[in-house]
Amino acid sequence: MKMIFKKEFYNKEIKPELDGKKVGIGGWIHNIRELGGLLFVQLRDSTGIVQLVVPKKKVGKEIFDKFSNLSKESVVGVKGVVKKNKQAPNNVEVLPEELIVFHKAKTPLPLPIDEKSNIDLGTIFKKRHISLRRKKYVHVFRIRAEIGRAVREFLNSQGFSEIWTPLTVATATEGGAEVFPVVYFDKEVFLAQSSQFYKQCAISCLEKVYGILPCFRAELSRTRHHLCELWQIDIEMAFKDLDDLMDLQENLIKHVVKRVKENCKESLKYLGRELPEMNKSFPRYTWEEAKKKIKELGVKEDPNDDLSTEGEIRLSEEHDTPFFIYDWPEKIRGIYYGDNPEKEGFTNSVDMIPPEGFKELSTGGERVDDPEILTKRIKSKGYDPAGFKWYIEMFESGMPPHSGCGIGMERLTMWITGVNNIREVVMFPRTPDTLKP
Amino acid sequence: MKMIFKKEFYNKEIKPELDGKKVGIGGWIHNIRELGGLLFVQLRDSTGIVQLVVPKKKVGKEIFDKFSNLSKESVVGVKGVVKKNKQAPNNVEVLPEELIVFHKAKTPLPLPIDEKSNIDLGTIFKKRHISLRRKKYVHVFRIRAEIGRAVREFLNSQGFSEIWTPLTVATATEGGAEVFPVVYFDKEVFLAQSSQFYKQCAISCLEKVYGILPCFRAELSRTRHHLCELWQIDIEMAFKDLDDLMDLQENLIKHVVKRVKENCKESLKYLGRELPEMNKSFPRYTWEEAKKKIKELGVKEDPNDDLSTEGEIRLSEEHDTPFFIYDWPEKIRGIYYGDNPEKEGFTNSVDMIPPEGFKELSTGGERVDDPEILTKRIKSKGYDPAGFKWYIEMFESGMPPHSGCGIGMERLTMWITGVNNIREVVMFPRTPDTLKP
Repeated sequence: MKMIFKKEFYNKEIKPELDGKKVGIGGWIHNIRELGGLLFVQLRDSTGIVQLVVPKKKVGKEIFDKFSNLSKESVVGVKGVVKKNKQAPNNVEVLPEELIVFHKAKTPLPLPIDEKSNIDLGTIFKKRHISLRRKKYVHVFRIRAEIGRAVREFLNSQGFSEIWTPLTVATATEGGAEVFPVVYFDKEVFLAQSSQFYKQCAISCLEKVYGILPCFRAELSRTRHHLCELWQIDIEMAFKDLDDLMDLQENLIKHVVKRVKENCKESLKYLGRELPEMNKSFPRYTWEEAKKKIKELGVKEDPNDDLSTEGEIRLSEEHDTPFFIYDWPEKIRGIYYGDNPEKEGFTNSVDMIPPEGFKELSTGGERVDDPEILTKRIKSKGYDPAGFKWYIEMFESGMPPHSGCGIGMERLTMWITGVNNIREVVMFPRTPDTLKP
Repeated sequence: MKMIFKKEFYNKEIKPELDGKKVGIGGWIHNIRELGGLLFVQLRDSTGIVQLVVPKKKVGKEIFDKFSNLSKESVVGVKGVVKKNKQAPNNVEVLPEELIVFHKAKTPLPLPIDEKSNIDLGTIFKKRHISLRRKKYVHVFRIRAEIGRAVREFLNSQGFSEIWTPLTVATATEGGAEVFPVVYFDKEVFLAQSSQFYKQCAISCLEKVYGILPCFRAELSRTRHHLCELWQIDIEMAFKDLDDLMDLQENLIKHVVKRVKENCKESLKYLGRELPEMNKSFPRYTWEEAKKKIKELGVKEDPNDDLSTEGEIRLSEEHDTPFFIYDWPEKIRGIYYGDNPEKEGFTNSVDMIPPEGFKELSTGGERVDDPEILTKRIKSKGYDPAGFKWYIEMFESGMPPHSGCGIGMERLTMWITGVNNIREVVMFPRTPDTLKP
């Protein structure tokens, strides 16, 4: 069956140049004001708002009354004539000739859509199925989509192939207890913490691989940086070392920022986000240098432990481009990070940190590719090599030196949009407390 | 630390025109033959095989012996000089000057890599971490990556935005018992059977959305068409009807086939796959017409039930392009399919079936967008509307008419590669019996 109404134009396409043209537009009733016998209707779609002007005398009582009775968020299709008008928003308005009411929205709404009303984040996420209509989120998710597009565009251009790895796994790749158990028929398995072992294996098929892949972390962290379900830009490449990996990430980030600046001007403007220039090389510090710098910034750091969140963010604030911290101690890295042969107890691994006070974007490095060293590592972390049987057998059967990283899609979107809470860059976030919608 | 060896060329780039050039190449030892004081070494990487010719007299005893001692699948880097030679495969070979042995592979291998040896599918998947190196799978996964690329290219060009939906959900979207339970801290949730409710919600933010998203089905089906974990090209669009949806899918498939033909010539050739011409329009049948046709083909069909697998495949064999079956009875469709207002008990929904004897690629249709009809549907299927609270509230708050579909990424890859078992187009398949690697 043919729909009786065709949406022919998106709102952003309604411009003064279309003056006199009859158009089919459609969307949500954002607002209605009455001024004597005249209605000003704001019709919203995903691309913006168009003003409909409805003079009772001209459109007749029937259409006028139909408009008058519409509640906010009702969905309509309108056929009407474009009028250029210097007094109207964007110098253009539409005079309706036909109105199709698809749905009248129930009142009161669970949440106001117009952004004059400030709503607390708790309500935003409790009513995420409604709050997604707010302009802020339309712009955030446009940018997130553009980031995904630009990431793939860049990696495809560099000869990478996209892969898809399994999400139900028999072994916890990152070790630890922070896994979600799944009842898999009569067995217990886990949700993948990362694609680590699988993307490493995939290089024996396609050499340079990537995926934007889900990861699950059963962490009881309730910070503005943590999610239980997240997406990672997972990259792995054969015959590449730590320097290659830092170069690749630097070029990737520069490409993504360039594309977002080109293609999301309006969204960046709405969010009040001015992205820094990316002309310079990203600074590269050893872990020890970074620790020293943080100390100089007045933050107390445990010299034997991971960077503190406070220290990392202070160091980030001192920068205006992303930067790298490499050469991490083995004891605070996963089993699969390759040794620095020139520095006992350290790994050729790297974190990429964004500037402007955000937490790390990525973790990566060279990988252990020797089955004996791998087995030793597994044991030294207190795991049983029997749980890593296929992974070890893969290396026994010949694997090249390789490196790779996982860039947090949400962390990257957070920094690029300048949004302060990671949940806001996720359509339907999952945290220890948020499971609906 | 800089790697001592740089892979400068992929094997497919080693061509007679490079005669005399010194190159760095790297990969796996595919095979070694000795002929007097001469070794012929097949060096394999993801792009193909290059012949190394190693004359003892010329390279010296040390390098010669190092080569002689290599087992199959050992990983090496080679610096050598390109020689054009009409007797060599692809008219080119490389004379090594330096050899770096990264790893000697253990013998015997868990699985032979060269394809002279036929291996049963059971072993292929038990040793998937090794069998992925076989040429067949390199080509299958190159095509799968190209399909993903082409799908996104097409949908981006049509104004769609990519979205990411949650995979741990509180409500089973497709109903039924075929869900995997997850222990989510102190709660029980499920792995998403599809992104259905979430992609519908996303149109209220971005109107035209898609994602290539994982789905989980706890079906005890052990057929060549079924997986427990699969990826779906999920599409949803506001203000579009059934005809728009069929048009979109037809154009999408034509674009993907075009791109695979252009960019995966070698892989299609290796797999012996000649894809049919896609010039014609895809035929469109009602469900009743399809049932009648299947009967005419001599397959017994229950007139009140879903198409039988046998009937569907027989009908597929009669076609040389994909085709659509629309107008499905409400009783065999999910709660969210929109009614056909002209035909009581039927829905404006559609399946897309590939030609040449394969099972359906996609299911989709117009959606229920009226909260009252939705509630009635939920009840009529025996569910409690209380479990669908946010989903119903979303419609009460105004949603446009919309349609969408889910195209099985693996089913599509199966048809395009011509591979007969769905597990073969998955790097690490998940079935009731396969959980490792």
